[in-house]
Amino acid sequence: MIRFENDYTEGAHPRILQRLIETNEEQTPGYGMDEHCEKAREYIRKECEAEDADIHFLVGGTQTNTTIIASILRPYQGAVSAESGHIATHETGAIESTGHKVLTVPSEDGKITAGQVQELVDAHWNEASPEHSVQPGLVYISNPTENGTTYTKAELEALSKVCGEYQLPLVLDGARLGYGLASIDNDITLADYARLCDVFYIGGTKVGALFGEAVVITNDSLKKDFRYFIKQRGGLLAKGRLLGIQFETLFEDGLYYEVSKHAVEMASLLRHAFVENGFALRYDSTTNQQFPILPEYVMKELRKKYSFSFWEKIDATHSAVRFCTSWSTKKEHVDMFVNDLHRLCITS
Amino acid sequence: MIRFENDYTEGAHPRILQRLIETNEEQTPGYGMDEHCEKAREYIRKECEAEDADIHFLVGGTQTNTTIIASILRPYQGAVSAESGHIATHETGAIESTGHKVLTVPSEDGKITAGQVQELVDAHWNEASPEHSVQPGLVYISNPTENGTTYTKAELEALSKVCGEYQLPLVLDGARLGYGLASIDNDITLADYARLCDVFYIGGTKVGALFGEAVVITNDSLKKDFRYFIKQRGGLLAKGRLLGIQFETLFEDGLYYEVSKHAVEMASLLRHAFVENGFALRYDSTTNQQFPILPEYVMKELRKKYSFSFWEKIDATHSAVRFCTSWSTKKEHVDMFVNDLHRLCITS
Amino acid sequence: MIRFENDYTEGAHPRILQRLIETNEEQTPGYGMDEHCEKAREYIRKECEAEDADIHFLVGGTQTNTTIIASILRPYQGAVSAESGHIATHETGAIESTGHKVLTVPSEDGKITAGQVQELVDAHWNEASPEHSVQPGLVYISNPTENGTTYTKAELEALSKVCGEYQLPLVLDGARLGYGLASIDNDITLADYARLCDVFYIGGTKVGALFGEAVVITNDSLKKDFRYFIKQRGGLLAKGRLLGIQFETLFEDGLYYEVSKHAVEMASLLRHAFVENGFALRYDSTTNQQFPILPEYVMKELRKKYSFSFWEKIDATHSAVRFCTSWSTKKEHVDMFVNDLHRLCITS
Amino acid sequence: MIRFENDYTEGAHPRILQRLIETNEEQTPGYGMDEHCEKAREYIRKECEAEDADIHFLVGGTQTNTTIIASILRPYQGAVSAESGHIATHETGAIESTGHKVLTVPSEDGKITAGQVQELVDAHWNEASPEHSVQPGLVYISNPTENGTTYTKAELEALSKVCGEYQLPLVLDGARLGYGLASIDNDITLADYARLCDVFYIGGTKVGALFGEAVVITNDSLKKDFRYFIKQRGGLLAKGRLLGIQFETLFEDGLYYEVSKHAVEMASLLRHAFVENGFALRYDSTTNQQFPILPEYVMKELRKKYSFSFWEKIDATHSAVRFCTSWSTKKEHVDMFVNDLHRLCITS
Repeated sequence: MIRFENDYTEGAHPRILQRLIETNEEQTPGYGMDEHCEKAREYIRKECEAEDADIHFLVGGTQTNTTIIASILRPYQGAVSAESGHIATHETGAIESTGHKVLTVPSEDGKITAGQVQELVDAHWNEASPEHSVQPGLVYISNPTENGTTYTKAELEALSKVCGEYQLPLVLDGARLGYGLASIDNDITLADYARLCDVFYIGGTKVGALFGEAVVITNDSLKKDFRYFIKQRGGLLAKGRLLGIQFETLFEDGLYYEVSKHAVEMASLLRHAFVENGFALRYDSTTNQQFPILPEYVMKELRKKYSFSFWEKIDATHSAVRFCTSWSTKKEHVDMFVNDLHRLCITS
Repeated sequence: MIRFENDYTEGAHPRILQRLIETNEEQTPGYGMDEHCEKAREYIRKECEAEDADIHFLVGGTQTNTTIIASILRPYQGAVSAESGHIATHETGAIESTGHKVLTVPSEDGKITAGQVQELVDAHWNEASPEHSVQPGLVYISNPTENGTTYTKAELEALSKVCGEYQLPLVLDGARLGYGLASIDNDITLADYARLCDVFYIGGTKVGALFGEAVVITNDSLKKDFRYFIKQRGGLLAKGRLLGIQFETLFEDGLYYEVSKHAVEMASLLRHAFVENGFALRYDSTTNQQFPILPEYVMKELRKKYSFSFWEKIDATHSAVRFCTSWSTKKEHVDMFVNDLHRLCITS
Repeated sequence: MIRFENDYTEGAHPRILQRLIETNEEQTPGYGMDEHCEKAREYIRKECEAEDADIHFLVGGTQTNTTIIASILRPYQGAVSAESGHIATHETGAIESTGHKVLTVPSEDGKITAGQVQELVDAHWNEASPEHSVQPGLVYISNPTENGTTYTKAELEALSKVCGEYQLPLVLDGARLGYGLASIDNDITLADYARLCDVFYIGGTKVGALFGEAVVITNDSLKKDFRYFIKQRGGLLAKGRLLGIQFETLFEDGLYYEVSKHAVEMASLLRHAFVENGFALRYDSTTNQQFPILPEYVMKELRKKYSFSFWEKIDATHSAVRFCTSWSTKKEHVDMFVNDLHRLCITS
Repeated sequence: MIRFENDYTEGAHPRILQRLIETNEEQTPGYGMDEHCEKAREYIRKECEAEDADIHFLVGGTQTNTTIIASILRPYQGAVSAESGHIATHETGAIESTGHKVLTVPSEDGKITAGQVQELVDAHWNEASPEHSVQPGLVYISNPTENGTTYTKAELEALSKVCGEYQLPLVLDGARLGYGLASIDNDITLADYARLCDVFYIGGTKVGALFGEAVVITNDSLKKDFRYFIKQRGGLLAKGRLLGIQFETLFEDGLYYEVSKHAVEMASLLRHAFVENGFALRYDSTTNQQFPILPEYVMKELRKKYSFSFWEKIDATHSAVRFCTSWSTKKEHVDMFVNDLHRLCITS
């Protein structure tokens, strides 16, 4: 079975494992106060051109989203999100478990617009008794989105602007940030993210690391006591060095970009194969996730050899499915798949 | 600097790293549904003589305590704990963040008794209006305790009995369980823990793994939907295999016991050194944590070369401090320390 | 200014005030343990033909919804509700503040169907990893709905049936229950509510009382420790007798039905007036709330003398607005309004 | 049965009932936006010499404490309280249900000192890793305390000073504030409370009203969006006028002071009776609660005719019990009790 079902099917980039071995006997303080974490923070600050940013390392995405959002909102506030946002759909109500509503706005492709945010916020403040409903307290977006699509710099700037006007922190979920940076359409740098968002994170779990997300807080008013939040939410890894070592390795000489680029190239091969064989794509993704619409018999045939995930029913005989590549996707597997798909389409 | 300040100063046992490298390119399903997790579960079930136990793997201790406790209690119930219990002191109110009070009972050495539990529970139900106060909903203990002390099997059986009578699940925090199993005083087996507790966990973070705690649920009524809790609380590791691989390695042929034994032997050397040089011990610990009471000048001198942690002020010139050993403590470091301590005591 | 803006603009039915005066010097135990509460419980149990029902009295609607829902759900579960449900829109995220997501289904008129519930629940359980999303844990409906519409007995039975099949408690918000009972379309009795719902409440605040909601729990498994929930959520009124006295008065000889009938008759007069003068109604309500669609100039003119509330923009020159009647609405005010509306429509 | 068991055994002062009747047919906006509330606010602001104070009316004490505290604390912060504080003991973990720990300090008589606060706060900030424990976020005191004792102005000033130095809001639970103001030992005015506390409330439930607590917020930074908190926590009474009318009546011409004075005088008669008959008092209270230590046979005899509440076991044959008076306590009942007690003591 060759797995395209998600982007965390393997371990970590070999250089990361190598580094874990090299550092294994070092004795360090716990909880992220070690030199590896400090060095990783420096690399990331530099890449973000954000000398004063606070950088924290957490283990996984749900934990990171929850910790960030719980650290920002007042109890009666909610997080504005696309209805397809990860926090709105696939985190078992983690945000609600901290007491906050997710205020969803409709989205066709996973993105939301500055106009939608403005409209929702205005609607709240125009109510006769705003205090009877949840007050918008921040805006959450993912880039790339859960649908593989990406924001342009202009779109991100527009969101940042409207958020600034309404004093709503803009929080960006970068679980797949590397794959956005590597997209051929990308015009946003890490420095842009740092400038335009109040808090964002750089995903490691899906981009070369065993696990880990690097949170970048640039808004001074959101920095205070963040470590209390991490600890309270169970996110303060005892051997925090493990996170430091991984991000140090990913950012000391561009490995993060390199592995991201590979994944996106592999996804591009898949995309071309689907298109060339006449399949529509559910979303226009130039990142590591591809969402072809396939007929049942094609899916059935492919499933004998490949794993991928069901996305949604399109009609009686077609479904959209998701293929993921990652830093670890093997070119020979992609080639094999492309050939198999082609052969299947010719013969059927 | 040689570090005795805690039991997570290094990485992992080399065999674990080796296994991570060997399995790195395997493709597996996410979130703990892979074969390594399954195999680790089998090993642990066997060791616990608990065929029907549910086994889940989480990353760290605070997360594990919070997830277990939140999964058991009704909103108006609290967790009974020693006032020195980890959940009562060093988790930044993680239990309270899930809505529950920690109902503390006094403890001199970190342990609580069946009698104390019974008294607290009776006091609640004897109130004129019990519904005006928090109802005891479970009993939480640590073994070894935060003070290095351990329960005897008889004590654990008494606690289990009173918990059973009052239908209070008994939850055991085994962050350092290996070091309890390796204590010369120990008469409790993993099978005993499985039999006497409703839920307990086997700590990996402090006992040979990079990270990881293995939760063992033997009470059928507490098994339902536990994965929802893990996910909601941010504890469902995407690459769950990392936990599976580590516990597989620790339990396939006794490595867990072996590394625990080493740590306890190292601690025993420290203990003897303190005693022989005339220092009192704050707690009577036969596990990997030692709490000598040292005069300021000795601490000051030792701190030049060794790190250890402040525990509590005893009087104007003395403090209790904590020394930890672990699976990774080097014999030569302990020997060096013993010599240095001896020399220091002779010359001063 | 004559107020039709809501159904809580006046105090209470004079007989209730009279009874408060008569009983004022009685000395009673606190917190709902007095004889008035007990008598009120008996009356309600009899009316519901539910001898074994537990009856609790709370002060207001948001508190009651939150307490009921928090008492039923497990932490990872959510409450299914119409997107227009009160808990989804106008309670400042009170449900989320207890950790639970409101799982909304679309609704044109405030009602949801058994089919929608079944679809939502099936969708959850058909997910590849259900534990990554919020599990439906109960179904919440209002009758009458926030739009003045009502369920038929057949519809309620269908909902009750599907809830039973999926073991989802059916919770009914009866803040305006009296006005539903008094609707000319009504075919549901209090005994039906008791039989078909697991928990429901009989609203007093909007139906003759100063304040108060009577919660009826018929599902045995939901009765346990409910008073703890009330106390924890701040809903256990010290002078609980005040609630007992009011519901005693409302139910000892049919006052609840009588005042409800009056309100609905008054609303019917308004409805006819709107229809006769050619205005469309946003919802087809035979209860105490009416939602005419009015042109701006009509609204503007009416506002000089009457208060009513904005509901939603229909087009550039029309809005739906809400008129409420209640037990206290004066016939002469309604007549005056009908005349004024008529005159205004003729002259413009 | 003559009840001294608590201070909420009757309804309300007749003038309040009278006013409810007079205003019953007035039509007012809901949720505390009516003129009665506005007038009550003015009276209270004037009494407090605090023109800029925000005044909110809530129904009961637990709700009020929870709403205030939840509005102030950040998620990782806790409320410092005497171990005997109402929030620590008799609110079913309401504070914890909002995610916050109650950080208790020992107290013999219900009071805490500035020194204790300073010590606790210093201990937190002197920890090696403060973020591993709950951060003190506010100080909660009751005056009179749950034990009937009262703070002097000097003590309150000292608390206020230390709170100011550490930027900890000082929150005062005034459920029985009137009885404190009426104490012969009292040297604190409402204006002092407003000056020395950041938030406090003036209890109505136990002091002449049917129900109701008036929250006074003087610290500007704590005023923002407080109505959202009230609504979310179910405390925004639909017919808010009921609260306004009651506090208007209590404060328009000194009724609040008058009824408080009566209660304290009645309590003083009880106190003298206990002392004269040779009974010790558990606490030295000059307010409306008295805590005599009685032998079993005296309690048994008194219970035939009077209700009072058990407080705590003193020894095998003695218990402390609580007698409450209130605005509604009848002089003839007190006289009868005094006589009965005297006769009982003489004959036995």
